[in-house]
Amino acid sequence: MKQDTILLAHGSGGTLMHKLISGLFASKFSNPILDKLDDSATFELPPGRVSFSTDTYVVQPLMFRGGNIGKLAVCGTVNDVSAMGAEPMYLSCGFVIEEGLAVSELETILDSMVASAKEAGVLIVTGDTKVVEKGGADRLFINTAGVGVVRDGVDIGAAKAKIGDKILLSGTIGDHGIAVVSEREGLTFETAVESDCAPLNKMISSMLDVSRNVHCLRDPTRGGLASALNEFAAASDVGLHIIEDRVPVRDEVAGACELLGYDVFHVANEGKIVAIVEPADADAVLAAMKTSPYGVDAAIIGEVVDEPKGKVLVDTHFGSTRILDILVGEQLPRIC
Amino acid sequence: MKQDTILLAHGSGGTLMHKLISGLFASKFSNPILDKLDDSATFELPPGRVSFSTDTYVVQPLMFRGGNIGKLAVCGTVNDVSAMGAEPMYLSCGFVIEEGLAVSELETILDSMVASAKEAGVLIVTGDTKVVEKGGADRLFINTAGVGVVRDGVDIGAAKAKIGDKILLSGTIGDHGIAVVSEREGLTFETAVESDCAPLNKMISSMLDVSRNVHCLRDPTRGGLASALNEFAAASDVGLHIIEDRVPVRDEVAGACELLGYDVFHVANEGKIVAIVEPADADAVLAAMKTSPYGVDAAIIGEVVDEPKGKVLVDTHFGSTRILDILVGEQLPRIC
Repeated sequence: MKQDTILLAHGSGGTLMHKLISGLFASKFSNPILDKLDDSATFELPPGRVSFSTDTYVVQPLMFRGGNIGKLAVCGTVNDVSAMGAEPMYLSCGFVIEEGLAVSELETILDSMVASAKEAGVLIVTGDTKVVEKGGADRLFINTAGVGVVRDGVDIGAAKAKIGDKILLSGTIGDHGIAVVSEREGLTFETAVESDCAPLNKMISSMLDVSRNVHCLRDPTRGGLASALNEFAAASDVGLHIIEDRVPVRDEVAGACELLGYDVFHVANEGKIVAIVEPADADAVLAAMKTSPYGVDAAIIGEVVDEPKGKVLVDTHFGSTRILDILVGEQLPRIC
Repeated sequence: MKQDTILLAHGSGGTLMHKLISGLFASKFSNPILDKLDDSATFELPPGRVSFSTDTYVVQPLMFRGGNIGKLAVCGTVNDVSAMGAEPMYLSCGFVIEEGLAVSELETILDSMVASAKEAGVLIVTGDTKVVEKGGADRLFINTAGVGVVRDGVDIGAAKAKIGDKILLSGTIGDHGIAVVSEREGLTFETAVESDCAPLNKMISSMLDVSRNVHCLRDPTRGGLASALNEFAAASDVGLHIIEDRVPVRDEVAGACELLGYDVFHVANEGKIVAIVEPADADAVLAAMKTSPYGVDAAIIGEVVDEPKGKVLVDTHFGSTRILDILVGEQLPRIC
């Protein structure tokens, strides 16, 4: 009889766990490296610096418009590895499952992981499954770690912004945060907001094809665009000057932010990249972004300035200038 | 004012999270790669095949005699990477913290991670922290992933056991499982059982220094020695013949197993390795194991036989022979 919910014994190291792993995880993720099911995966990497990143995903609810925790877990780590100018190649995944999770729901999530990994061109090569008792975790958490190889000649880091550099953003902000909070709170808007969750490695690759002068690159997730920009300003000891009217925001996201009292600059994204680029290359990088389905709304939103050092200034829609701080307290727990 | 418990806002991507990360995680784990705090860590790897592994640790309780979840999280992944004949080099770590965890307890756990990483000679280079609301997780889960480089000329895999090979075990079995269950259930024995949790990479390295003919290598964690041996037997399509009297078991562990109704072969270990080795090299590999503080009780416990294929046979203390199956149901949830 096929079990329709996950039991504690599925995490025991015994026969039920072997069946779960071989029947579900290994068959969904199957590839020649994973299929060996050794204690660790082994593979060759092409020459170059290695980029290595991890994130654990605890998003609540598991399913939301535009994605689910599985899609998020693959895309998020793909994007973090890519944000150092690397081509992501291999992922690990670690599951913590609360006893009682429906196997059908887990299958849907695994299918999304497979689809996103395929789109990104990465392989899931090693993994781990733990099951905790009812109440020991909230349904499902997924950790992914990823390795990739940094492109030759690329030198990206938060501390590398230079005065005069242009600031590029790949599209609308706040979509992921608003999609998740809408799902969670049962909010409905005239037009439903979808998470922007997507693998950005191919877009980043096309940006680096046209320029070796991308200085900073980050996907503005938790803490939103404000966190990413402030991190660049602090690490590079420069000012960042943003023109609010150039920052793409969907009407329905702007409306939701107004309703909920959020600053859209603080709302999480899962399919956007912010880049700081040498001015001479900015138009070419922007054009490269726009060739990606995930970069059609890309824009140059500002530039790097001398003062105030370590701060982000925003010229607002109303003609005033404000300092954009990072979020102080908690806005949206478990957004990713 | 220094916060003495973890708050939801510590996971928000805002200022409190930045303080937690820079003040606690980054200062404890500090190294030149991590200190950049970029989206991903970058480093050079020496030439060779890469070994990549992950595990999420959900052990309950967090602290037990001989270790804690942090020590376990570092040692477990170090051992998994090493079990492919690789030298582990870099770890990622992902924390899921339940709101309300005492910062002092987290510090103790991080200190153990630092100590174990130092002993193993690995660097923690990238990480992630999520905070979930009270009741959303059971105090603390830690995922680690690790990368290392496989030694040249080594070819280890579960499917590589050959008839006539010797089966070596690095020491007593069942210590970790009994230590954790004693802590959890408040059991006391005449002599307290300590977890064997330890980084085994240096011992494995010394084994590979003396032999290129180590065919299989595994740390028998969840599911115990029985799972590891059965996996070898199945993958290699051979029989494994074990002499029970040669398998080292502490008296107090044997006593606890009798009391609790456990088969010690099913009880988890976190500082042991089982190896299948070409017969001509077995004594040299055994001697190498014994030079490690973690291998003083190492023994040759049996050999690889033709029949029954895919099965593990044990000659018992009482003169009979039994088939050693893998665990069917759940014995000890959340043992690692």
